Amino acid sequence: MSKDVKINRGLKGIYFERSGVSHIDGAKGELSYRGYSIHDLATRSTFEEVCYLLIFGDLPTADELATFDAKLKAARTLPDSIYDIIRATQHGHPMDVLRTAVSALATLEADSRNVGEEAFVENGIRLTAQVPMIIAAHENIRNGRAPVEADPALSHAANWLYMLKGEKPSQAAARLADVDFILHAEHGANSSAFAARVTVGTEANLHGAMVTALATLAGPAHGGGAEDVMKMVREIGSPDKAADYVRAKRANREAVTGFGHRVYRAEDPRARHMREGVRKLGEEMGAPEWYEILQGVVEAMKPYARHGLNVNVDFYSGVIYQLHGIPMDLYVPIFAIGRMPGWIIQCIEQQRGNILIRPLTLYNGPDMRDYVEMSDR
Amino acid sequence: MSKDVKINRGLKGIYFERSGVSHIDGAKGELSYRGYSIHDLATRSTFEEVCYLLIFGDLPTADELATFDAKLKAARTLPDSIYDIIRATQHGHPMDVLRTAVSALATLEADSRNVGEEAFVENGIRLTAQVPMIIAAHENIRNGRAPVEADPALSHAANWLYMLKGEKPSQAAARLADVDFILHAEHGANSSAFAARVTVGTEANLHGAMVTALATLAGPAHGGGAEDVMKMVREIGSPDKAADYVRAKRANREAVTGFGHRVYRAEDPRARHMREGVRKLGEEMGAPEWYEILQGVVEAMKPYARHGLNVNVDFYSGVIYQLHGIPMDLYVPIFAIGRMPGWIIQCIEQQRGNILIRPLTLYNGPDMRDYVEMSDR
Repeated sequence: MSKDVKINRGLKGIYFERSGVSHIDGAKGELSYRGYSIHDLATRSTFEEVCYLLIFGDLPTADELATFDAKLKAARTLPDSIYDIIRATQHGHPMDVLRTAVSALATLEADSRNVGEEAFVENGIRLTAQVPMIIAAHENIRNGRAPVEADPALSHAANWLYMLKGEKPSQAAARLADVDFILHAEHGANSSAFAARVTVGTEANLHGAMVTALATLAGPAHGGGAEDVMKMVREIGSPDKAADYVRAKRANREAVTGFGHRVYRAEDPRARHMREGVRKLGEEMGAPEWYEILQGVVEAMKPYARHGLNVNVDFYSGVIYQLHGIPMDLYVPIFAIGRMPGWIIQCIEQQRGNILIRPLTLYNGPDMRDYVEMSDR
Repeated sequence: MSKDVKINRGLKGIYFERSGVSHIDGAKGELSYRGYSIHDLATRSTFEEVCYLLIFGDLPTADELATFDAKLKAARTLPDSIYDIIRATQHGHPMDVLRTAVSALATLEADSRNVGEEAFVENGIRLTAQVPMIIAAHENIRNGRAPVEADPALSHAANWLYMLKGEKPSQAAARLADVDFILHAEHGANSSAFAARVTVGTEANLHGAMVTALATLAGPAHGGGAEDVMKMVREIGSPDKAADYVRAKRANREAVTGFGHRVYRAEDPRARHMREGVRKLGEEMGAPEWYEILQGVVEAMKPYARHGLNVNVDFYSGVIYQLHGIPMDLYVPIFAIGRMPGWIIQCIEQQRGNILIRPLTLYNGPDMRDYVEMSDR
């Protein structure tokens, strides 16, 4: 029997569910949320609107958005114990600290074990507001500073930068963070969203599923792209060295980071919005060389790219964070801030008409053998 | 294109990987670990031996077991911050507290982000020793008692009961806990092990993967069987009411809990060992009625069982915990203590020749639509 079984390694190409949230056309390089092109959303919408769109299915009216935004802002608070837990774990990696704090919130929130859809929505909105608070509080605490209180006058993205750095960001910087979150908000059955669905499949609660998502995003092969690109950019050092770097890598048959994506065969449609952001922010900050290094890599890659230049979204985001002076180990947590609404709505979808997700492994271990007593081993 | 795609809901019947750890023959009702029948292991082995067998592939010699056991015992320690975190989260569900503490350990252990195989093994052994400590410490703390220090003279199972209750268990009670752990130690690509593999697939660390496994096991549809059966047994109340209970349930077309398993069509091979345990422990403790209620349910189910009586492992374990006076919300954490070696070795397998696990969802949301400005909504 074993011989005939097909092993779907990585579950590549296997559909496990229908989803009405985002549509990815990998061949054409297109991405849409709820039928809206990512390009429209990245240029005309805000992260708060996109959260609403993803979770509720339609763009909000002004009233709906006001109510939703008020909820998000009201949830910008953490119990004292969470600050204590952040202090106790502050020397860990920010993703480990974030995951621990989100896990701990489940023990402190009244309704965290409720698996009804309304509870998923309400807990999801609260967690969306709390996740950036945890990351910013940790960054301040580990640098010997007091956590910054949220400012209800600021948007989700602007408030994040404010809590992180203690000063209000420029409008351009806030908008760039906003766009970054929009671009990262949802992306189908990626490993973290899928793992969260497996957790929900057992009727587990949303906090548990978000912990799973965070644990899974933390792996460098999923959330580590921006960090890898930043390391490459630093290694290259100046724009004129980009071509040599790429040639040497390719001569050794090594991959150049930031290119290629499991589902895109054309350019990742999110990349262009980050590219423009890097260029402008670099100019604004008098540090255009980072953008030039990236474009030098893109140019040098042209002879090697089989299906066009498949730069992915992470190719540009690291440099944006670098320009803001954000340490590299916060790049994945920033990804998590953006991805919250996508994880939440996929968990809600999973919970509707739920089913246990339990595939199979094909046994390739020893044949049946007789037990041997210790004295005879 | 959408019409032709097959949706594999729950990934039922889909093989995603080979595994040399356990073999389940659902049709015959057989389970083996590394080629050894679960019946041999449950009657002739110890949990420590089974841990070694699962992780390293063969039964240990006396020397190998001594070294392994010494490592496990040396790891029976928790940093002070973990006790602080347990105190801060003590009013939460024990699975939420356990998951938080394991997550926090990642920030306090020197080597927790190492994804090499040796680190997975060493961190896995440490976590195997730490998980029961966390659960016992939480149970003591939430009841106003000081955590009990581990006793290096006791086995893994005996020490667990000792740390939980503050008194050394009888040999029979310790052996029953040992067998319980052996029976729960590994079970293929169940949702928690599978979710942990998805986490490892992104090159995430073992602590993260264990957090995912705990979050996923916490769902009632995965780890909640023993608790559900205990609730049923309490509801039935006395052996003579079992038949009426079953008839009423079936008349309403409701499932009777503790029967059936996603992969077994014959009786779950683990059930018989727990059945004997319940019977003997009940007699020993002068409380045979719990066993009689269970057997009354089994008898009453006979007319309804299509493929024999598919009692699963959880059918008996709840009553054992009940006889020990263990509160119901610790039943799933006990499952986790037993499952640790299975999770660990599956994560190690995944990490060897690793691949990102990323299936697909088929889009069934709105068609592409034009963006509408806020003023026009």
